[in-house]
Amino acid sequence: MKHRSAQLAALMAALVVSTLAGAEPHAGDWIDVSAPIDPKTAPVYPGNAPVKLDFMMHYEKGDKLALSSYSLGAHTGTHVDAPLHFIKGGTPVDLVPLQHFVGPARVIDCSPDAKVIDAAELNKHDWKGARRILFRTRNSRNHWMTDPTFHEDFTYVAADAAQLLADAGVELVGIDYLSIEKFHSPDPRTHLILLGKGIPVVEGLQLADVTAGDYDLIVLPLRVSGHEAAPARAILKHRP
Amino acid sequence: MKHRSAQLAALMAALVVSTLAGAEPHAGDWIDVSAPIDPKTAPVYPGNAPVKLDFMMHYEKGDKLALSSYSLGAHTGTHVDAPLHFIKGGTPVDLVPLQHFVGPARVIDCSPDAKVIDAAELNKHDWKGARRILFRTRNSRNHWMTDPTFHEDFTYVAADAAQLLADAGVELVGIDYLSIEKFHSPDPRTHLILLGKGIPVVEGLQLADVTAGDYDLIVLPLRVSGHEAAPARAILKHRP
Repeated sequence: MKHRSAQLAALMAALVVSTLAGAEPHAGDWIDVSAPIDPKTAPVYPGNAPVKLDFMMHYEKGDKLALSSYSLGAHTGTHVDAPLHFIKGGTPVDLVPLQHFVGPARVIDCSPDAKVIDAAELNKHDWKGARRILFRTRNSRNHWMTDPTFHEDFTYVAADAAQLLADAGVELVGIDYLSIEKFHSPDPRTHLILLGKGIPVVEGLQLADVTAGDYDLIVLPLRVSGHEAAPARAILKHRP
Repeated sequence: MKHRSAQLAALMAALVVSTLAGAEPHAGDWIDVSAPIDPKTAPVYPGNAPVKLDFMMHYEKGDKLALSSYSLGAHTGTHVDAPLHFIKGGTPVDLVPLQHFVGPARVIDCSPDAKVIDAAELNKHDWKGARRILFRTRNSRNHWMTDPTFHEDFTYVAADAAQLLADAGVELVGIDYLSIEKFHSPDPRTHLILLGKGIPVVEGLQLADVTAGDYDLIVLPLRVSGHEAAPARAILKHRP
């Protein structure tokens, strides 16, 4: 009897722990899915400008306040590609209509080992009807958005999947590494298909701790006049 | 008779034009209240880093894509001050809880000539009970957030008003120029009162085209690790 109640107590403790660990956030809780902007953790796509964060003033220098300055590529951390990135004469990031950036979104949890999201992989999931789609891939499971080493073999979206999304009229597509395109592709068809249809692309999302499902999304890029991309903050909230 | 119908036509045309000019945005429309980040239009607070926007690649250079890099002070354009800006050991901008940044906000249209928002000016308005407060002042009416000349005599919030707001437990305070504090104040009590209570401050809002009233606010600063402020995008939507 004593043995059985000890077993029961252990079982109940295990249940409590697993419930807490797997607890969904409260309905009102926003989840930060932005990657930190930090030279110690942020990967940089080859050829892009490095991240530099400086304190022009700081308490440790004897100042009475802290004052920062930043230098970074437009595609640092979580960021938005506007059509101008790959389309000559395309819409710059400051003029992409705000409705793309605020509203319902679906997080799709891709097959654990998928290195490419092609039409076949996309169609394994319930994506139709979703207005904004964010792909959670092995990039997130490997925590690559907080690993300063750039990983060339990141999971990307292939042209046939991009075409399906564009034809379906989605308002935004997101992915969890620094590009939605195969690394150093000589023919950037995924970008051309999406941006060519005016669909902004969010790259560098941090989706490690997010489960598949429907959310409210807010992703707001800085209002940088006339440029082709901008760093952004992105947050999600479970839809009731 | 001919003369009267010409008068009538002119009157009707004037009515149509004024109705269009004063039209409220649709309920679902987000209003961009972020100042453009653009060296041609963005004022810079003296002592802060200048704004530099570069195209590392561009169609005009014969490239097949555009690729940008940016250098700017943390207090450029519309931005959020975190407690660390004036509080040694205070919360950095990446760790300010997201609930401050998303939710109901009230825009208060200050007296047209008010150069300071003190307790007396604040109490002329219906501000009590509002969880987030944005001040529209002559800074907006003069369009100073799109004027590269820095105006030292901007309207600011005085310490007595800041104390009332802090005591009321507001979650966020915003203003429409680069600082909420009197220019070059040797005693930055407004910042200390608000930031000391963990209330983030949004500066550099562009509120020229916004009327007084209740809105849904989203203001998202970049997630810059361990720093004291960050540029932000800020949007408003009329509450039904």
